[in-house]
Amino acid sequence: MPARGDHEARRAEVSEAVWRVLAAQGFGGLTMRAVAAELGASTGLLTHYFRSKRELVRYAYEIAELRTSGRVRQPRAAPGLAALRAALADVLPLAPEMVVMSRVWISFWDAALGDAELGASQRARYERWRGRLRGHVEDARELGEIPGSADTGDLAATAGGFAHGLVVQALFDPDRFPPERQLALLDGFLESIRPGRAGSPGSARAPGR
Amino acid sequence: MPARGDHEARRAEVSEAVWRVLAAQGFGGLTMRAVAAELGASTGLLTHYFRSKRELVRYAYEIAELRTSGRVRQPRAAPGLAALRAALADVLPLAPEMVVMSRVWISFWDAALGDAELGASQRARYERWRGRLRGHVEDARELGEIPGSADTGDLAATAGGFAHGLVVQALFDPDRFPPERQLALLDGFLESIRPGRAGSPGSARAPGR
Repeated sequence: MPARGDHEARRAEVSEAVWRVLAAQGFGGLTMRAVAAELGASTGLLTHYFRSKRELVRYAYEIAELRTSGRVRQPRAAPGLAALRAALADVLPLAPEMVVMSRVWISFWDAALGDAELGASQRARYERWRGRLRGHVEDARELGEIPGSADTGDLAATAGGFAHGLVVQALFDPDRFPPERQLALLDGFLESIRPGRAGSPGSARAPGR
Repeated sequence: MPARGDHEARRAEVSEAVWRVLAAQGFGGLTMRAVAAELGASTGLLTHYFRSKRELVRYAYEIAELRTSGRVRQPRAAPGLAALRAALADVLPLAPEMVVMSRVWISFWDAALGDAELGASQRARYERWRGRLRGHVEDARELGEIPGSADTGDLAATAGGFAHGLVVQALFDPDRFPPERQLALLDGFLESIRPGRAGSPGSARAPGR
C-alpha cells in the first residue's frame, strides 16, 4: 500500500487529468479510458478511484463546481445594477479560463438532461444562481434604478437567460462576439430594463399605449 | 441484395431509430450500439448505413434539422414585434415536441463544441437564425415599435440569447417554467425593448440621466 502522501499526490494528479479531459472534450468525452490516457496510466488503476463511469462523472462535476467557484471574478461592484452587471459578466466567456469553463458547463447541461440526479443538481444550481441575481435586482429596485413594479424573480430569470444564451452564441462565434461586444450587449440589456431611457423616440408617448 | 423498396423502408426505420435515440439520450448517447438496439438489429447491419460514428452523427444532425424545420410553428404573426415574438416562442419548450427538440439541440451544442465541422455548422445556423430575428427587429424599427437608434444586429443577438437561455432554464425546471410563464417572460422581455413604457417610475425623469 502506498504511503498516505503518495496517495494524496496521486489523487491530485487524477483530479488534474479529469479536468483536462473535461476542458478538452466536455462531459460527453469523459470516460475512464480518456482519463487514464491523460494520466498515462491503465484504466485498471482508475478503478481504484472510481468504481464506475457514474462515479467518475460525479467526481468531475465536483471538480467543475470547485473550479467555477474558485475562478477569477469581476471586481466587487456597488449594489444594484452594477452588482447585477458584475454577476452576469462573471459567467461570460470574456477570457480563456471562462471559455473553457463555459464549454464544460454546456456539456454538463447535456449530461444532466440525461440523468435525473445530475438534472436535480443543475436545477438547484440554477435556482441558487437566480436567487443571487434576484438579490441584486431587489437592491436595484430599492435604489430606484428599476421600476418599483418590477417582478424581481422574473427579471432575475430573464437576466440569467440572456447571459447564458449569450455564452452559447459567443462560444460558437468568438469572432462575432469578442469580449467588448459581449459587454456592450450586456450593457444594452441592462439599459433596457431601466425605465425612461433618455432620447428614445417613444419617451414622449402618452401612458397607456 | 434487397429490393429497392425494402432498402428505402429500412432506411426510414433507421432514421426513426436514430431520432428516438437522440430524443432519449441526445447526441451524447448516440452510438452505433444504441441505434442498433433501438432497431433490434446488429451493429453489423448498421455499418451498411454508417461507416463510422462520425457518419452517424452527421446523419443524426441532418435528421434533427429536418425535424426542426418541420415542427409545428407559432401562427403567422403581423410584421415587427409580433413576428419577433412568434419567432422566439417557436424555440421555447412550450409543448412536448419542443421539449424533445430543445433537449436534442442542447446536446448538439456539446457535440458541436468538440468538433470543428459541426461547430462551423452550428455557427452558421446561429447566424441564419439571428438574421431572421434581425429582419423582424428591422420591421419593428420601421414600424416605430422600437427606437430608430436601436442596433438591430445587437437586438437580434440579445433576443436570441434571452430565448435560448430561457430554453435551458425551462428544460431543467418545467415546474418553475410552465408554458404560461415562459410566454410571460417573453412578453416582459419584448416590453423592455420598447421605449417609454407607460407608468414606469422613471418615465418622468429628465433626459440625460
